[in-house]
Amino acid sequence: MSKQDAPTTGLCRHTNEAIFIRNANLCDDLIGKITFTEMIYFNLLGRRSSPAETAVLNAVLVTIMEHGITPSAIAARMIALSSPEALQAAVAAGILGVGSKFIGTIEDCARLLAEIIEAPEGTGPRAAAIVQRYREAKQLIPGFGHHLHRPDDPRSPVILDVARQNGVAGRYVDALLVLAKAVDEGAGRHITINATGAIGAVLSEIGIPLDSIRGIAVISRAAGLVAHIQEEQEKPMARFIWELAEERVGHTAG
Amino acid sequence: MSKQDAPTTGLCRHTNEAIFIRNANLCDDLIGKITFTEMIYFNLLGRRSSPAETAVLNAVLVTIMEHGITPSAIAARMIALSSPEALQAAVAAGILGVGSKFIGTIEDCARLLAEIIEAPEGTGPRAAAIVQRYREAKQLIPGFGHHLHRPDDPRSPVILDVARQNGVAGRYVDALLVLAKAVDEGAGRHITINATGAIGAVLSEIGIPLDSIRGIAVISRAAGLVAHIQEEQEKPMARFIWELAEERVGHTAG
Amino acid sequence: MSKQDAPTTGLCRHTNEAIFIRNANLCDDLIGKITFTEMIYFNLLGRRSSPAETAVLNAVLVTIMEHGITPSAIAARMIALSSPEALQAAVAAGILGVGSKFIGTIEDCARLLAEIIEAPEGTGPRAAAIVQRYREAKQLIPGFGHHLHRPDDPRSPVILDVARQNGVAGRYVDALLVLAKAVDEGAGRHITINATGAIGAVLSEIGIPLDSIRGIAVISRAAGLVAHIQEEQEKPMARFIWELAEERVGHTAG
Amino acid sequence: MSKQDAPTTGLCRHTNEAIFIRNANLCDDLIGKITFTEMIYFNLLGRRSSPAETAVLNAVLVTIMEHGITPSAIAARMIALSSPEALQAAVAAGILGVGSKFIGTIEDCARLLAEIIEAPEGTGPRAAAIVQRYREAKQLIPGFGHHLHRPDDPRSPVILDVARQNGVAGRYVDALLVLAKAVDEGAGRHITINATGAIGAVLSEIGIPLDSIRGIAVISRAAGLVAHIQEEQEKPMARFIWELAEERVGHTAG
Repeated sequence: MSKQDAPTTGLCRHTNEAIFIRNANLCDDLIGKITFTEMIYFNLLGRRSSPAETAVLNAVLVTIMEHGITPSAIAARMIALSSPEALQAAVAAGILGVGSKFIGTIEDCARLLAEIIEAPEGTGPRAAAIVQRYREAKQLIPGFGHHLHRPDDPRSPVILDVARQNGVAGRYVDALLVLAKAVDEGAGRHITINATGAIGAVLSEIGIPLDSIRGIAVISRAAGLVAHIQEEQEKPMARFIWELAEERVGHTAG
Repeated sequence: MSKQDAPTTGLCRHTNEAIFIRNANLCDDLIGKITFTEMIYFNLLGRRSSPAETAVLNAVLVTIMEHGITPSAIAARMIALSSPEALQAAVAAGILGVGSKFIGTIEDCARLLAEIIEAPEGTGPRAAAIVQRYREAKQLIPGFGHHLHRPDDPRSPVILDVARQNGVAGRYVDALLVLAKAVDEGAGRHITINATGAIGAVLSEIGIPLDSIRGIAVISRAAGLVAHIQEEQEKPMARFIWELAEERVGHTAG
Repeated sequence: MSKQDAPTTGLCRHTNEAIFIRNANLCDDLIGKITFTEMIYFNLLGRRSSPAETAVLNAVLVTIMEHGITPSAIAARMIALSSPEALQAAVAAGILGVGSKFIGTIEDCARLLAEIIEAPEGTGPRAAAIVQRYREAKQLIPGFGHHLHRPDDPRSPVILDVARQNGVAGRYVDALLVLAKAVDEGAGRHITINATGAIGAVLSEIGIPLDSIRGIAVISRAAGLVAHIQEEQEKPMARFIWELAEERVGHTAG
Repeated sequence: MSKQDAPTTGLCRHTNEAIFIRNANLCDDLIGKITFTEMIYFNLLGRRSSPAETAVLNAVLVTIMEHGITPSAIAARMIALSSPEALQAAVAAGILGVGSKFIGTIEDCARLLAEIIEAPEGTGPRAAAIVQRYREAKQLIPGFGHHLHRPDDPRSPVILDVARQNGVAGRYVDALLVLAKAVDEGAGRHITINATGAIGAVLSEIGIPLDSIRGIAVISRAAGLVAHIQEEQEKPMARFIWELAEERVGHTAG
């Protein structure tokens, strides 16, 4: 393959004297000039975020970061106990839990909203059809319901409000509300829009590509896991969890 | 073990109606009220950052995030090529590269600065002793020198300036400068303070615990890797790198 | 939840004096008595493998282990370069590449074979229907074709022969051959059964559950990656690959 | 860099018709001809193992594979719960726990044995000096003691017997026994040689490089984790462990 054929990254280039991220000079234009959240948006999308987009992205990143003793946090703490010399390994173990079952529903919900918006037959009929489809497959609709926060997830209205107050609540938020109505009707009772549903809508509003939505969750959770690992050093609890688990699901000899 | 003996996390607790992070109500006090960077600091340290601390943490997170085709980025892209359905796995593979050799030097440099500050014989003598120690071990001093940016890493003065302008450049930055003088004297020529050295100093200034310094780099790099994986979807280059590698270091049959 | 409700693992239990794996005493019955391959089978399935099943599992594990400079090997070497103190992290990064695109096709092919066997209309019609389905979706049929080994993958007949010689080639191997005929007819030319297709068939023959087929590949590749990391220590090439990649897809400033 | 300068892997090369691992033809010489354990040895060391070496390696791989509800198993099960679609991620999370604290002691013990063997002052004095060194640092000597198996780890004599019966117990096993004597004398009571100590000795006897010893443990544990993930699918317990942990170390709001 010749040099010309090689794809080249548009993310970063550097010379002896300077580093460029996208089209900006890291030292002149970015460090000390923009926030981490703005940098995440800029590096990912190749354009600067508006203050409204920054506000929404901040709200999402703040919401997802910390949820206590989650499967991800337990995994990270187990690895911190086993390999305390490798903090990065403990974080990596934890973020491997950002899969289909929990916050992966953000992406799944966002895909449903895109489907609703693009439906030629209109948003209401498509939302009803989606609800029907999931009911027939006996599956939960991603972005709805919560095993703990009943009847309503307290985070969802706050997240949607940030979008509204910043003027970026548009067709995805509308589609979410249409879907929510269909969900309630399909179930014959109220089912909450959960945080992952609200986040799926607002990340779509600010232009995060569907394929990177899960990435936003990964970034945020990585930050939360660093705090868990730090706490584990100051106030260890991984061994306690381990012994508890072994005592209850392990030792069966005797 | 009785309930009383159990260590409990101070990071998060929740009720049906509310989620608390540290002592703050997630929905009332945090979402829409603070930025992601402020949240990282708050969750990790248990106290709100000052605007100066936030500015320094932003500068660090912005600096580390993106460095082009690094070993971490290559690893992440290889996994994105192999397992495109699992974005979290690609990010995890990449952050496993935040180890001793590259940005792990941030932590190592910060530990040297702590040693210098605490030295009873004074900062200058300890700095000279450290230089001597590394020369005898034929090791590079963490935080100094750069294979590409010569004679000076352009990021370091910018990072230190952010700290100074925000009034948080204190004894760690002083220690770094004392060490830099000793490094130059020991080598008989100028060796740059690199970005990892400057970052080690300023993260210490804002109170990031030594054991979590690597974690800040992990968070920032996770964000950079998400952009690489997104770019890989739009403009693939992993297969090109793979074929290039196989052609050059692989196929030796004949 | 009461003690009685707790699920308990059937894999391992121990007392002060003994460790039991499944129903066997580790020290009395297993160490020095059975091979690693037999132990993998025993621990996974809960019953001892026959010599024939052991032979087939060995053949599969030997086949998958090493394929040179694969995306997995590149990822592992990049992490070994960055974090040489954490061999386990380099292996982990590499096995994250055992996803849908490459050896994940073993599992996908095995699922097709199960579908063919269970088809009420007979194996031939179902095989033809599968070929048609993939053609319409413009997707490759898992287990068929190879970008390098043309016209035939040399591993496939050897793997199938091991199964035949050990008397365990049955309905899954038959289904594979039926599918191969349909593939050739659908394409209008010969397309090879590749190694992943043959492996999908023979692992099904020896009773490896569909959900664990990918796990067999992970075990084998983990072993291959350890050799890559060892070679990387003796004869480094990760930095060479990195520089090659950066030179070709990276540096675009100037 | 010119083509000539490129390092090339000695592990694998392939042509359209054949794949070579080291100097052997995969299809003609290896598949169906050697076991997985022999293949691991061959690929790692570049030479065929003797039957004695194979027997010892099998004994080690069988011993390490499965230990019930370990931190690694808990981490793997948490990720299997979160990302059931990515078995490789669950295994990767688990093997990240093969670090310094638990089975990393195999490598640490092997390094001590190498130090003892090479000591110019003789094995006894060096063993005593090592015991003294660890006592002063208030650290446990790797390869000795066990929190559960008291007074003696039942695995160690079995592993050492396999080495003896196969005629490969030599200077490393001797060094281990010398060290064990010094450990008992230093403590004033009997402290068991644990499984990791015995394994460190016998892996050294069969020529596994110090830098790859941890890799043998990773391979074996990867196999054990696949069985845990399979069991998790048939008889889930990850959610039970999670809820147990959250109940005990989590929910502190009230």
